[in-house]
Amino acid sequence: MTAPLRIAIAGLGTVGGGVLKALQLRAHELAERAERRLEVVAVSARDRSKKRAGDVSKAFWHEEAAALAGSEADVVVELIGGEGGSALALIETALANGKHVVTANKALLAKHGARLAAQAEKGNLALKFEAAAAGGIPIVKALRESLIAHGINSVHGILNGTCNFILTDMEKTGRSFAEVLKEAQALGYAEADPALDVGGGDTAHKLALLASLAFGTAPDLKHMHVEGIAHITQADIGYAREFGYRIKLLGVARRVGGGIEQRVQPAMVRAGTPLGAVDGAFNAVAVDAGEAGPFFFEGRGAGEGPTASAVIADIVDIALGSFEPAFGKPAHTLTPLVPAPEGTAASAYYLRFDVLDIPGVVAEIAGRLAEAQVSIESMLQRGRNPGEAVSIVMITHETPQLAVARALKSIATSDKVLGAPSMIPMEMG
Amino acid sequence: MTAPLRIAIAGLGTVGGGVLKALQLRAHELAERAERRLEVVAVSARDRSKKRAGDVSKAFWHEEAAALAGSEADVVVELIGGEGGSALALIETALANGKHVVTANKALLAKHGARLAAQAEKGNLALKFEAAAAGGIPIVKALRESLIAHGINSVHGILNGTCNFILTDMEKTGRSFAEVLKEAQALGYAEADPALDVGGGDTAHKLALLASLAFGTAPDLKHMHVEGIAHITQADIGYAREFGYRIKLLGVARRVGGGIEQRVQPAMVRAGTPLGAVDGAFNAVAVDAGEAGPFFFEGRGAGEGPTASAVIADIVDIALGSFEPAFGKPAHTLTPLVPAPEGTAASAYYLRFDVLDIPGVVAEIAGRLAEAQVSIESMLQRGRNPGEAVSIVMITHETPQLAVARALKSIATSDKVLGAPSMIPMEMG
Repeated sequence: MTAPLRIAIAGLGTVGGGVLKALQLRAHELAERAERRLEVVAVSARDRSKKRAGDVSKAFWHEEAAALAGSEADVVVELIGGEGGSALALIETALANGKHVVTANKALLAKHGARLAAQAEKGNLALKFEAAAAGGIPIVKALRESLIAHGINSVHGILNGTCNFILTDMEKTGRSFAEVLKEAQALGYAEADPALDVGGGDTAHKLALLASLAFGTAPDLKHMHVEGIAHITQADIGYAREFGYRIKLLGVARRVGGGIEQRVQPAMVRAGTPLGAVDGAFNAVAVDAGEAGPFFFEGRGAGEGPTASAVIADIVDIALGSFEPAFGKPAHTLTPLVPAPEGTAASAYYLRFDVLDIPGVVAEIAGRLAEAQVSIESMLQRGRNPGEAVSIVMITHETPQLAVARALKSIATSDKVLGAPSMIPMEMG
Repeated sequence: MTAPLRIAIAGLGTVGGGVLKALQLRAHELAERAERRLEVVAVSARDRSKKRAGDVSKAFWHEEAAALAGSEADVVVELIGGEGGSALALIETALANGKHVVTANKALLAKHGARLAAQAEKGNLALKFEAAAAGGIPIVKALRESLIAHGINSVHGILNGTCNFILTDMEKTGRSFAEVLKEAQALGYAEADPALDVGGGDTAHKLALLASLAFGTAPDLKHMHVEGIAHITQADIGYAREFGYRIKLLGVARRVGGGIEQRVQPAMVRAGTPLGAVDGAFNAVAVDAGEAGPFFFEGRGAGEGPTASAVIADIVDIALGSFEPAFGKPAHTLTPLVPAPEGTAASAYYLRFDVLDIPGVVAEIAGRLAEAQVSIESMLQRGRNPGEAVSIVMITHETPQLAVARALKSIATSDKVLGAPSMIPMEMG
């Protein structure tokens, strides 16, 4: 058997502790699969007195993560988080010192991924990040190594478990976004500062990585439309249900008109489809792989077990000498992302207008939609409230985004329409 | 760039032609991913005059597959089929001659996989078979390389597209198994000799491979219960629908009582669950990976595009030097499968009895079930037909298989019960 693979783990929180624990509990089995022992030789975390999931007594303890880059380890596992700071410094120095890197850090890779991939390749080192895209789901490996024969047309999915938990709970309990978020925070399902999750930023980071793997482009956060879920109301959820849909925060990347469209946005997904059936904190990814057909992957998107599973798979790959380029293609061949021409991507849309319940209002809205070449597939107005506010909901046929935006702008000028309309695209489930 | 990887393809049917075509159409992209050119240097097929999906003018043509083992190729791709004969001879000789092997041949691997894996490892060669388990779904790679950190409790899925197509069509059209099969044959969705598909044998071969990958055991067809779908009636499909279920042919492998249970059997799967929503010719696999959680994978299980996708992923792995053991662990560490103690695996069951519609018949059946410690969750008797035949359907609580078998044996002796009862386990979707 080859010499042990020496591992340094930076960050011993939930995930780091889980990695340590699984490496210890399953040492024999993993050594068989890796064809060598996997040995944790160094760890770093601030508070040495804190109880950890795994035993760290045999590993060299460092208070500063930076020290791991100078350790005897063959692989540095970065689980500190943050798009720069000590995580970035550690990865750069580890690669410079000839160490392989495994990270779960989506924010960092979405920003610095292409450059770090190039640095790793130059040193013939692995830079692996299965845990960064969809937790335990092996979607990075699938896009990097499996679905490569025919080219990818689109990849889209539910990439943030916190948002999916909140939306699922809003459906179940009828409570508002704010109430559900508060409870999720109390239960530890949402961070004290939830902005990165509910604002769509975390999904954006993950989508940038998936798009890079799918299309051979450098990860790109600039050409991406990002919306969160804070504006989703019970009214929208109720209407979605009436039409047979559910609202999911999706990351969508697809080829449109010679470019790539990247969007993070709440979308209507038909209930009963694979994506439309994903509940609670689960993640799921749908891939349209051309002639190879559609694929669907579902699993847990976060937490100790799933994330440790992904990190350990990366470590075993490294132990076996599996060093393909980080994003599937050599870093110098990754092309800059060419964005799809703005507004050309077509979808059907759900539109909700709060209007005065007076004769002629539907005709006026329908007329302005028609002027902008937006045609309506179905319309719903529940309840009457003569002279007062009432909601009108419309589902459009497939329409370029620009046309819908133009119609809404026109409709907003009507004195019968109250406030900004709600506009949610329909997506394939 | 490294020297080209030289490929020989045995068998130029749908899949072989698809592999050839994709290697040619996507030559540049695949060379970037493989870090070397992928060059088809030899092919074999009987009829040289037949039109093929890809261009074979530059490859050396052999009429006998055996000749490929002596070609200059680095990799032999076996797409002939059949569990022995020329396919087996080709693989053995190719490995003996120092060539890597890629195959889609589930029947052959289910029978000879452990031995061939050992032969490949001895020569430090790859033996890869992503296309053999679930067509385009990268489940072999997922089990071999990704879901390895926590151990697998169970793997189960829809592994035969023909059976799922037939069952889906029976649901939609209300037609009998025989009628639907006949049409599927006319449309080319089912083989002229459908026995291997509808009898469950093809699912059994695939399940043997998945179980080996999941549990570190040698593929084992002997300790496996195998049923097909020919006995599924519209009555069963109709009752399934009433209870909110669909009937799917599943391959199930799971840890039970210190052993492994392997079963191929029609099962009731709740509609709306991921597995319960799989329609037509699609395949899907659900994996319970312990602390990493449940995973679900869906995609096309057969056909040119999906199968070629899997074969090419294997070829690119080989080009990159990724040679982990065929079943994830060194062949000498694969243990013989220890079967679960017979009849101990517990499920809920759907039971249908054709009985005489006379007073006391439900009481008699219920009494005999109770004697065998089988408790009933729900009961349904649609329609009355005094003194004549009528169906009674029961769903049991979770019960060891042995107890249900004992109860049915006792019930079969009743003169009020006509013919053999139908018994279908309920499975997690």
